[in-house]
Amino acid sequence: MPTASENRIEARLSRAARTLASRPGMRDFAPAADNVISLTIGMPAPDLFPSAQLAALTQEVLAREADQALQYGQLLGVPGLRAYLAARLNEQEGLQLGPDQFIITAGSSQAIAMLGQMFVDPDDTVLVEGPSFIGALRTFRMLGARIVEVALDDSGLVVDDLAPLLDKLDADGVRPKFLYTMPTFQNPTGVTLPAERRASLIALARERDLLIVEDDAYGDLRYDGQTLPSLLSLDRDGLVVRLGTFSKIMAAGVRLGWAVGPPELIAGLASMKVDAGTSPFASHLAAAFGRSGQLDRHIQILRAGYHRRRDAMLQALKEHCAPYATWTYPEGGFFIWVRLKPHVSPERMHEAAAREGVTYVPGNVCFASGEGQECLRLAFSFAPEDQMPEAIARLGRAMASASPSC
Amino acid sequence: MPTASENRIEARLSRAARTLASRPGMRDFAPAADNVISLTIGMPAPDLFPSAQLAALTQEVLAREADQALQYGQLLGVPGLRAYLAARLNEQEGLQLGPDQFIITAGSSQAIAMLGQMFVDPDDTVLVEGPSFIGALRTFRMLGARIVEVALDDSGLVVDDLAPLLDKLDADGVRPKFLYTMPTFQNPTGVTLPAERRASLIALARERDLLIVEDDAYGDLRYDGQTLPSLLSLDRDGLVVRLGTFSKIMAAGVRLGWAVGPPELIAGLASMKVDAGTSPFASHLAAAFGRSGQLDRHIQILRAGYHRRRDAMLQALKEHCAPYATWTYPEGGFFIWVRLKPHVSPERMHEAAAREGVTYVPGNVCFASGEGQECLRLAFSFAPEDQMPEAIARLGRAMASASPSC
Repeated sequence: MPTASENRIEARLSRAARTLASRPGMRDFAPAADNVISLTIGMPAPDLFPSAQLAALTQEVLAREADQALQYGQLLGVPGLRAYLAARLNEQEGLQLGPDQFIITAGSSQAIAMLGQMFVDPDDTVLVEGPSFIGALRTFRMLGARIVEVALDDSGLVVDDLAPLLDKLDADGVRPKFLYTMPTFQNPTGVTLPAERRASLIALARERDLLIVEDDAYGDLRYDGQTLPSLLSLDRDGLVVRLGTFSKIMAAGVRLGWAVGPPELIAGLASMKVDAGTSPFASHLAAAFGRSGQLDRHIQILRAGYHRRRDAMLQALKEHCAPYATWTYPEGGFFIWVRLKPHVSPERMHEAAAREGVTYVPGNVCFASGEGQECLRLAFSFAPEDQMPEAIARLGRAMASASPSC
Repeated sequence: MPTASENRIEARLSRAARTLASRPGMRDFAPAADNVISLTIGMPAPDLFPSAQLAALTQEVLAREADQALQYGQLLGVPGLRAYLAARLNEQEGLQLGPDQFIITAGSSQAIAMLGQMFVDPDDTVLVEGPSFIGALRTFRMLGARIVEVALDDSGLVVDDLAPLLDKLDADGVRPKFLYTMPTFQNPTGVTLPAERRASLIALARERDLLIVEDDAYGDLRYDGQTLPSLLSLDRDGLVVRLGTFSKIMAAGVRLGWAVGPPELIAGLASMKVDAGTSPFASHLAAAFGRSGQLDRHIQILRAGYHRRRDAMLQALKEHCAPYATWTYPEGGFFIWVRLKPHVSPERMHEAAAREGVTYVPGNVCFASGEGQECLRLAFSFAPEDQMPEAIARLGRAMASASPSC
């Protein structure tokens, strides 16, 4: 029975809070039980944390810049970090971005939420890939958005589906506030949008005046294949805002990300900041990590480490799961997307996996529509490389026990 | 003329973003120009930052706890920091709070915003003190709240005004979502609610089932007078949520605060978290600062330092401003509230202060209603002690030049 205090709170909740309360499965980062191997959350590998470097840099920052690093900062974020990010992206992609086109956020999660708050009122329409990032879906739901999915295949967003979808929405008088997309090493599928589709998407955005949120959490973590131009770099019309994060390339625990895009959009985002600006302490540390050259060297180490983990998972999938499922081949990022063959029962498989001691994200959680029952998202980023064969062997046994031959 | 990109963004803005865009005076923390003494923002004094201690503790934390400190954490926040805060508050106030009654936030600014998002839909009513904290007013406005002010005198919130106000609202079918109050060293006035008014407020809250948000950003910084029981400690009905912050007692740049209250309310706040949890890195550092005893020792140093600054400002006000104004006597915190006498023109005084090179917060910014033209908020926290006489001499000259005798 609910307590008086529970009733009192319940009766006062906002629409957003009621929406969240009615949806189970809130994402949290509690550690898995002993004996359980977690392939669930896209957590970076602790053995790849640059702990000693960050300890040394913190000394330097606090000896040199404590007056700024320990003080309140600007709503846009620490100018030195924005200047560093602008210089890095300009060099990588041949752009001419200024520091005021960047805003520093508490991870890209906060940037997604702030973009939502800036543009979305209840019942506004937002376009996402089906499947998409769970955290973004949760945030858009909390804002009361109507979430419309665009299909995704092994080459990412099916851009050809977008024009007819926009026509259909337009016929109903609906103008989507933006498209939220992850063109590179998509979460949850790991797939990447090829160059031609990127060009088509930007052409269509221009034609239809469609705002695009390009979430690029994993772009620096490419293990093979060719680097592709970002949507931001292809845009000439101020239609793309791109999100980046230090969570995967430095440390998730510092909670630092950024948004980069048209200056007036970034200024608007700054006015949505309700936390008095993202941590100057963490930002000075990240700027020092970047400017010293250590960040780019560390990314090389991360690429090698995650490359091995990905290959170990792919190899194990081939050994243990080929009769029961197919899966994507990610050229980078943290995730592989597995699709059970029709003869494997998803429900029985999930139960068996829990018994076997392996966890992952059930695919339906990644769809706004709740479809994707036959899919799983596996993160190869967190479990140690030497546990990968055992983790996937458990998965294979779970699949086998959910097949009719058992 | 607005650019195409500006028009495009304008046309897509949410109600919250349009509300903000229509209100000038957004708070930011850009440094003041040379030769200008800023009494504007309640920034902590850089000469009182515990830089060397934090540098040493960061070494320890990264040597010992990097796997947790650099990783994603729980939405409620790092358990060790919540346990420390619970133990500290239980000891200070004789309470029995558990760690799950605390949620760690990005400063108390974020806690205010999350409470707003949890309870407030557009056109809902929120009660605040008149005057109140600018950041809170901005956040409640952004949510579309109807902000109703309760008067404040030199002894804080006029609790006797609250019952008739609730009656009046009730007659109109309006039930306020909560009262946002700062009973101790109030921002912007510096005044403190006496024990009897605290007891009356809690009795009234119980009688009327009124939820209270007790913002206690300055409670540890008392320079004279007696410590009073917090509203949280007087509450037996789960009607109070209290906010605290490390911004003033450790470093604003780490962006760490907390909310403590009924477990079910705190769990609800966790579900409003859209930044994947507040910085584990900063939280481990704060927990180490606290557990080592350094925080409580540092608070003694801060009390002595701010005590001197407050006294220097009070002394200078007496010397330079007595003919033109009256002011509050704060027993702690960062602020003095100045009320110009009727013969001083606020408009002319503001212009003269800008010429003299001293800045402060014009009082009307602190009122939802826009009244308070004749008031100023002075922060004694940031300007160096030896600049205080000059700062207030400039203020006095500005007041003099806005008086009819000039």
